[in-house]
Amino acid sequence: MAGKVVLHYFNGRGKMESIRWLLTVAEVDFDEVFLTTREQYLKLLSDGDLMFQQVPFVEMDGMKLVQTKAILNYIAEKHNLHGKDLKDKLMVNTHSEGLMDLMDMIMTLPFTADVKTKLDNIQNKAKDRYLPVFEKALSGPIYLVGGRLSCADVQLLECTLMLEEKFAGILAEFPNLKSFQGRMTRIPAVSRFLQPGSKRKPQPDDVYVKTIMEVFNIKSPFL
Amino acid sequence: MAGKVVLHYFNGRGKMESIRWLLTVAEVDFDEVFLTTREQYLKLLSDGDLMFQQVPFVEMDGMKLVQTKAILNYIAEKHNLHGKDLKDKLMVNTHSEGLMDLMDMIMTLPFTADVKTKLDNIQNKAKDRYLPVFEKALSGPIYLVGGRLSCADVQLLECTLMLEEKFAGILAEFPNLKSFQGRMTRIPAVSRFLQPGSKRKPQPDDVYVKTIMEVFNIKSPFL
Repeated sequence: MAGKVVLHYFNGRGKMESIRWLLTVAEVDFDEVFLTTREQYLKLLSDGDLMFQQVPFVEMDGMKLVQTKAILNYIAEKHNLHGKDLKDKLMVNTHSEGLMDLMDMIMTLPFTADVKTKLDNIQNKAKDRYLPVFEKALSGPIYLVGGRLSCADVQLLECTLMLEEKFAGILAEFPNLKSFQGRMTRIPAVSRFLQPGSKRKPQPDDVYVKTIMEVFNIKSPFL
Repeated sequence: MAGKVVLHYFNGRGKMESIRWLLTVAEVDFDEVFLTTREQYLKLLSDGDLMFQQVPFVEMDGMKLVQTKAILNYIAEKHNLHGKDLKDKLMVNTHSEGLMDLMDMIMTLPFTADVKTKLDNIQNKAKDRYLPVFEKALSGPIYLVGGRLSCADVQLLECTLMLEEKFAGILAEFPNLKSFQGRMTRIPAVSRFLQPGSKRKPQPDDVYVKTIMEVFNIKSPFL
């Protein structure tokens, strides 16, 4: 169980950002190693660190963890952020899966040829399919599931902040979500994470996309 | 907790098939309602049955479950198919996520324009990235994690059978996987599920694709 948590990923959000958020809320300190060259990636492969040849890769509790959702579930469960019983855990996972679906759409934007169409699609789905569900779940309760903080709340905060970056004012019709954001950002660890200089990453830029293409030897950025 | 489990989905594999497999191994009997018309889908929506407007939708234990992985985790946890402790659960989830990634690629084949390229890509990834991991995990142990049957084993069986349908002989280089298949298919519930007339679904055909397009009002079959 010894040693600090070390995250191996690109210097950007991608699939690692939800892990950074969850560790932050669990108040687990972590170091980061940024993948910048193909050589680094090939070294990780030859060392057998990447079970399915993919990152995120997290060193934690003496283990080499891969697969984003498996990692998130492990952290959540270990730090009592995964629901108090079987049924609450089911609801945490259900909300969480919906939020990951929505965040995946935003995450792949830099690798999309027709950004405008995709943005419209994301905005429509956010307003019609996803946000109403969370708005309703928070009409009364202060957390999504079982009256206590869970990884689904952390992902909801992350997701709503991502949406506002793309669609300012999108929460205007969702007052419970806006209140929820206010409550969550008053958690000291969250407040610190939202300050400049924290380990939170900015929106993806050209350098981020170029690095991923080099590391994975991808010829076209478009999925 | 009363009432029989009811699965609402298309009459085909898709995302529901892993749920059918897991319920089968857990020896939970289930009924199925097949989505064949857009009206049925709109009725589910207006009844508020589909939290994120998506299927799979499963009625179970007095609840209305959505989101495939949340449902699988719930069934696995309830029926002791999810690892005996936190670390085993992590490894079950890690294997499971890899298998779901691979099965997702096969699942979306009928919605792909360039099937040949995609098939080659699946075969390469299966042989290079995924199957070696499971082959190694089974060099000695008879199950993937912790010496006992888990949902990851069930998904590995499902996945290897799917791969063999597309690429006959693909397991020739993976003798441990072939032995594993043999052991798994001797489980009585699995053996029955593999017989004609069971609730196991065949590979997708044109009717399956056409039904999905009609129900979801999709104009082009291609993702």
